[in-house]
Amino acid sequence: MRRVSLITDSRHYVGPALARVLAGRSHDLVLVDPIDGLVDELIALGAAVEALPAGADDRAAFDSMVAASIDRFGRLDSASLFSGRVITGRFLDSSVDDLRAVTAGCIETPYHFLSAVLPPMIERGEGQVLVFTSATAARPTPGAPLYSAARAGATHLVRNVAHEVARHGVSVNAIGTNFMDFPEFRQASGYDASDEMRERYHREIPLGRLGTMSELAAMAAPFLDGTTTFQTGVFVPYAGGW
Amino acid sequence: MRRVSLITDSRHYVGPALARVLAGRSHDLVLVDPIDGLVDELIALGAAVEALPAGADDRAAFDSMVAASIDRFGRLDSASLFSGRVITGRFLDSSVDDLRAVTAGCIETPYHFLSAVLPPMIERGEGQVLVFTSATAARPTPGAPLYSAARAGATHLVRNVAHEVARHGVSVNAIGTNFMDFPEFRQASGYDASDEMRERYHREIPLGRLGTMSELAAMAAPFLDGTTTFQTGVFVPYAGGW
Repeated sequence: MRRVSLITDSRHYVGPALARVLAGRSHDLVLVDPIDGLVDELIALGAAVEALPAGADDRAAFDSMVAASIDRFGRLDSASLFSGRVITGRFLDSSVDDLRAVTAGCIETPYHFLSAVLPPMIERGEGQVLVFTSATAARPTPGAPLYSAARAGATHLVRNVAHEVARHGVSVNAIGTNFMDFPEFRQASGYDASDEMRERYHREIPLGRLGTMSELAAMAAPFLDGTTTFQTGVFVPYAGGW
Repeated sequence: MRRVSLITDSRHYVGPALARVLAGRSHDLVLVDPIDGLVDELIALGAAVEALPAGADDRAAFDSMVAASIDRFGRLDSASLFSGRVITGRFLDSSVDDLRAVTAGCIETPYHFLSAVLPPMIERGEGQVLVFTSATAARPTPGAPLYSAARAGATHLVRNVAHEVARHGVSVNAIGTNFMDFPEFRQASGYDASDEMRERYHREIPLGRLGTMSELAAMAAPFLDGTTTFQTGVFVPYAGGW
């Protein structure tokens, strides 16, 4: 039987690249909101694809993605999520509304996702779950204290959930990125604003460049593709050595 | 050009499995002390293989491995090491000779390895280095305090070296294992002694089983195969959620 993976956002960030890598490794896919042309490209790679429209980030939306996988393929082997609401600024200038916004975006969304995808995997006694959080989870991040704290909470939620479900053969891991090359980061960070800004970033990132989505997909693959299921509760910082 | 990877021990532990994975990903290989039949198997997968005899764990030995790669292939893209001297027992029953033995086996050997493989990679401006340490590096380990401490030292050496060489485009990462299925662990741990011991281990390991070498090779591959080079200074605990 071919493995089936759910990608809960196939339009932004690592979604399209991850779909390509998994299709190349003999996976069928459930894709939410795929970019134009992606489904045809994956079918040409031999994958069967269930494409779903974009939805909310609530429990019902994630439940419907899981149900779509079971309906179409009779199984769900792995699932991945990236989410996150970025709020910058100093702690002393922040409001509790800021805190609630990052908590909802960075912790509640993974909570709903994990709550939806884990039960069928537990029932089956196997499954791989990957949550993309942020490298800011692992170190104080000047200018983004609430965001960094919420990401740390999400990352440690992953570790705790991993421990709880390990007895059922299900693994749950996190990759925490920063400095990735995608439009939202390049714009929000000021990376594209000037040569000076770009050079400033390249000085801050030890490896001296942004990371690409095809690289991130290659790093993520072993956490989803069934080739290795002995790692769980792992957090991989993925940020050019930052 | 095909990438070239050095596996500094191709007889024990993950060595043979890693060679197979990398050969399957279009790598040529420099193998130290390959097991019988491995070289022919890899050649059948399309790899060119330079096989070297077993040597010491000193700087001269690692230098000669690097030189063999440059001589045969004109390059060295990635290199991996596993090493480690296990000493168990309580701290208060230990001797400073025990400490020196674990330090030599767990820290000095990676030191020599890193010293040998990094210079040609720095000169070329790219390269991937992976050191297998131990999951005991990340938590207190009753019954193996000196070993756990030495592994922590080696793991943090990897992080520090990663930071120092990142500007040169070279990445250095560590995977820390425990509870892997290989003869030395099964014998030394008592895993094979009785059904009771096996069950005791399966209770201690959250995922309830030992990890396999083919799985570990799949986890290690992205740290060596050139598909993603934006991670450095990373430590991946690989121990079934322990």
